[in-house]
Amino acid sequence: MSATEDEITGWFASQSKLPPEDFPIGIGDDMAQIRLGNETVLITTDMLLDGLHFDLRNATLRQVGYKAMAVSLSDCAAMATVPLAAVVSVGLPKSFGTKELKELHSGIISAGNKFACALVGGDITRWKCENPFVINVAMLSKPAENGPLKRSGAKVGDSICVTGSLGGAGFGKHLGFEPRVREALKIAQMVKVNSMIDISDGLSSDLNRICQQSGVGAVIEAAQIPISNEAKKTDSPLNCALNDGEDFELLFTLSEKEWPKLSNQWKERTTLTRIGTINDTGKMQIKMHDGRVNDLEAEGYNHLSR
Amino acid sequence: MSATEDEITGWFASQSKLPPEDFPIGIGDDMAQIRLGNETVLITTDMLLDGLHFDLRNATLRQVGYKAMAVSLSDCAAMATVPLAAVVSVGLPKSFGTKELKELHSGIISAGNKFACALVGGDITRWKCENPFVINVAMLSKPAENGPLKRSGAKVGDSICVTGSLGGAGFGKHLGFEPRVREALKIAQMVKVNSMIDISDGLSSDLNRICQQSGVGAVIEAAQIPISNEAKKTDSPLNCALNDGEDFELLFTLSEKEWPKLSNQWKERTTLTRIGTINDTGKMQIKMHDGRVNDLEAEGYNHLSR
Repeated sequence: MSATEDEITGWFASQSKLPPEDFPIGIGDDMAQIRLGNETVLITTDMLLDGLHFDLRNATLRQVGYKAMAVSLSDCAAMATVPLAAVVSVGLPKSFGTKELKELHSGIISAGNKFACALVGGDITRWKCENPFVINVAMLSKPAENGPLKRSGAKVGDSICVTGSLGGAGFGKHLGFEPRVREALKIAQMVKVNSMIDISDGLSSDLNRICQQSGVGAVIEAAQIPISNEAKKTDSPLNCALNDGEDFELLFTLSEKEWPKLSNQWKERTTLTRIGTINDTGKMQIKMHDGRVNDLEAEGYNHLSR
Repeated sequence: MSATEDEITGWFASQSKLPPEDFPIGIGDDMAQIRLGNETVLITTDMLLDGLHFDLRNATLRQVGYKAMAVSLSDCAAMATVPLAAVVSVGLPKSFGTKELKELHSGIISAGNKFACALVGGDITRWKCENPFVINVAMLSKPAENGPLKRSGAKVGDSICVTGSLGGAGFGKHLGFEPRVREALKIAQMVKVNSMIDISDGLSSDLNRICQQSGVGAVIEAAQIPISNEAKKTDSPLNCALNDGEDFELLFTLSEKEWPKLSNQWKERTTLTRIGTINDTGKMQIKMHDGRVNDLEAEGYNHLSR
């Protein structure tokens, strides 16, 4: 069996001995953090492939440019940091020219402008043979007042919460979603958050990352999971909400006391839902509608599965 | 006719209104510079495609990992900045597994370690169909004492200089070249340099970038150009040295007075050669061995040519 993405990322992390004074956050979170004198900067990189993260047969280049930026903006959100600037690399199919680049650019800019994230550079290259389009965004952010929120801070007893609704993003939301940058910054400002991640590969997989990196377990309640309207139209709405991925909603944990405080003060349009509790079992479980408690596997998207 | 890479980059730059206090260097140089409180950080991104920047039929993944990092390290050198950290994204062919990722990683680390440039994160993704390998490196650096050196600072009367020798990098050097990070920092420390770039697309194209961005012209002397042994074995050594690209040597200009100072003090193994003079003609020319002066076109590699 081949290694999962998290296993190989773990191996990479074990190979890099990063002094924490220079690199407060290294490999394995949504962004890495680098010290620069009295300041720190965070960086993330995301590669999107035609046929996997989008399909140019039914997505426009403007949508693809938007999505490429939004995915990285969602990483900034996942740590409650403030987006600063992005550089974009593209590998173009032979048939692409100036027109295609300008259309792509309009999508990149429309996403960046929403969060004052400037496009500051890039790299344009073209396949020699007929190969599909690939785009990579690397993005910088800076910590907000309450520092970057990590995956590894979840504590036993924490409430587990999500923004928005989950599942079925593949029906369209994945191309036009709103990165939760403002929500993350607002939440981090209002209450003490112990851990945060964005749901890119699916609730089950991303909750598993919080559990693994925090050394805790979790139980979530099927009845509490906010299932999207798109997922509800499918044969298995719960399964979609748990494993579809590309929701790009926030998943975060905070102490039991902080949740009512947040919930009462929250006046934004984006909903917040408490879906479960962090525990010390070391495993993930889900309480079904009939009261049964099942083990929950990380069955979201694995980029290394074949 | 389709636009050149420089034309489209110019169009992108014209679309981004970057406040110079926040972004001292924007689109169009080797790296962009971003202000963070009292500090600044620079960023570059480079995408390498199988079949274009390397060919996995005759390059190892270790070599490819090394080259991907070295290309970005050369961007750090091009501005005489100090490499800090890199994030690497990969798009894997379906057949790649853990073994291939570890081989690639060894090359990435071997290049990074030479310049204390840490691997701090990445993104691993895999093509759904059988498509070729793609790798992107985004790298951060910090300015050295004498600030980042830009392409736009060349002045009429400047001496034009290069490190090492040029041409024929495709015979092997392009996979194992030594990024001129140390040389750039040393040169910038020893003398006042007015402009600098690394030769990635060929001397003619990269000198053209200095001329265009500085609003100057240049005349170089064929007899002074340091032609590599590999280029000398070809039918057209001078043409190779002017246009092959991927030399990853430094091309820089400094006042006529500074050149002898630099040249006399220089004790490093890497050679420095004065190849010509910046002038106000607004065009590039080359003085041939027979004394004739020909116009010199930017005929190096254009990533948007088809």
